Amino acid sequence: MNPPGHTEDRDPPAAAPARNIRLTVEYDGTDFSGWQRQPGFRTVQACLEQAVRAMTGESVLVRGAGRTDAGVHAAGQVANFRTSARIPGPGFLRGLNAHLPGDIAVIDLQDAAPDFDARLSARGKTYVYRIWNHLTRSPLLARSTWHCRAPLDLGRMRDTAGLFVGEHDFRAFRAADCERRTTRRILRRVDLRAQGVVLTVEIEGTAFLKNMVRILAGTLVAVGRGALSPEQVAALLESGDRTQAGPTAPARGLCLLRVHY
Amino acid sequence: MNPPGHTEDRDPPAAAPARNIRLTVEYDGTDFSGWQRQPGFRTVQACLEQAVRAMTGESVLVRGAGRTDAGVHAAGQVANFRTSARIPGPGFLRGLNAHLPGDIAVIDLQDAAPDFDARLSARGKTYVYRIWNHLTRSPLLARSTWHCRAPLDLGRMRDTAGLFVGEHDFRAFRAADCERRTTRRILRRVDLRAQGVVLTVEIEGTAFLKNMVRILAGTLVAVGRGALSPEQVAALLESGDRTQAGPTAPARGLCLLRVHY
Repeated sequence: MNPPGHTEDRDPPAAAPARNIRLTVEYDGTDFSGWQRQPGFRTVQACLEQAVRAMTGESVLVRGAGRTDAGVHAAGQVANFRTSARIPGPGFLRGLNAHLPGDIAVIDLQDAAPDFDARLSARGKTYVYRIWNHLTRSPLLARSTWHCRAPLDLGRMRDTAGLFVGEHDFRAFRAADCERRTTRRILRRVDLRAQGVVLTVEIEGTAFLKNMVRILAGTLVAVGRGALSPEQVAALLESGDRTQAGPTAPARGLCLLRVHY
Repeated sequence: MNPPGHTEDRDPPAAAPARNIRLTVEYDGTDFSGWQRQPGFRTVQACLEQAVRAMTGESVLVRGAGRTDAGVHAAGQVANFRTSARIPGPGFLRGLNAHLPGDIAVIDLQDAAPDFDARLSARGKTYVYRIWNHLTRSPLLARSTWHCRAPLDLGRMRDTAGLFVGEHDFRAFRAADCERRTTRRILRRVDLRAQGVVLTVEIEGTAFLKNMVRILAGTLVAVGRGALSPEQVAALLESGDRTQAGPTAPARGLCLLRVHY
């Protein structure tokens, strides 16, 4: 029995820390202008914030671990928000999904420690880039792969991928408008796999520069079709000359697989 | 050297047999009203016939092996058409793909024997039905799977699948408006596989009744969640009572994988 004056459904004291909710989110990025809220655009963050508002009446900030670009997918984006709502976890998850469009789903919802921050607490991320390497395009995989017609030499691509592993200055492998001061990053793993005519490049790192995964994928494809040599890529890691790296691979082939904490 | 009056680019004599072209076609069925041409609707057959017309100026009939329903996909639909065009195969394939929308592609094009008919020559077809068996939906697989929340008992489903193999009267497993007189069909194979939370049902048979694969999939799911027993399904194959079979599973989970000749 509760002491007098204490009931389970009264408002929490203003000073009480709000609940910190951690979400794992999957989305098909095709029809989104990326993660980040921008007035007038359909974004993943805005859809999630609207769903939370619909359930709780609160205007919250949903912070994502990675601000994926327009067209980029996620199988395991992580986000968090603070709320006073007392809705139990399973009902909260079901309710959010009922308020989200078909191309976003909350696939996990947990109460997190008060200091958990999806972006600042992240210790790394794993992305996968998928390439459809065949003469004709694949309508069934068009939304999730980059179509490369030219035959790709997987051995040469693997040799090159090995050069990226470890700590390097990746300033040649970032978008022209990337404003980060420090461009040294650590990649823990760059794995190439072929499953039939689908090539996947899985990249795990502590942090990434703007468009870095897509430029690494574009560079690996340039090596695979013979437009660049592994030696030229090694020189690029030294020189840092963006104009000599491969093209930025299209967004549709990229998927944020996991965020590590 | 050609004899006088014979040049390579003159029109073929009217009596000459037209070329018979065999196509293998992949499509994402989501935004199509099925295979079959219908005035006012976006169909796969109409798109293919338009692409042939754009390349050859001819109004041809493109015959498909299977008339897939609205929303059903194909990885290996087969079709044929007759033409007087002398465009070589590889250029014909590239040209058709240039005239097709992104959700259809011709993945193979061959000159076929004069009597080849995609529909009448087919000796069987393989379909796959995909089920996403998880509490939350999957935006990345939403276009190609049926989302079933309830846990499914794969063992019970396999036992039931075994009942369908061989020659049976499938009149309990067809659409109410199916007009076929004979309802005995031979299924050569009904394989269930689980890959993580994706269940696939692969069905190979000589011929199928209307909606038969989707009703078989719906019945297997009903057994998996305990709504029907394998014994009830065995009785259904005897009684032929459509009202006792499972529901018709949604089109989006179905894909025509291969046509056998």
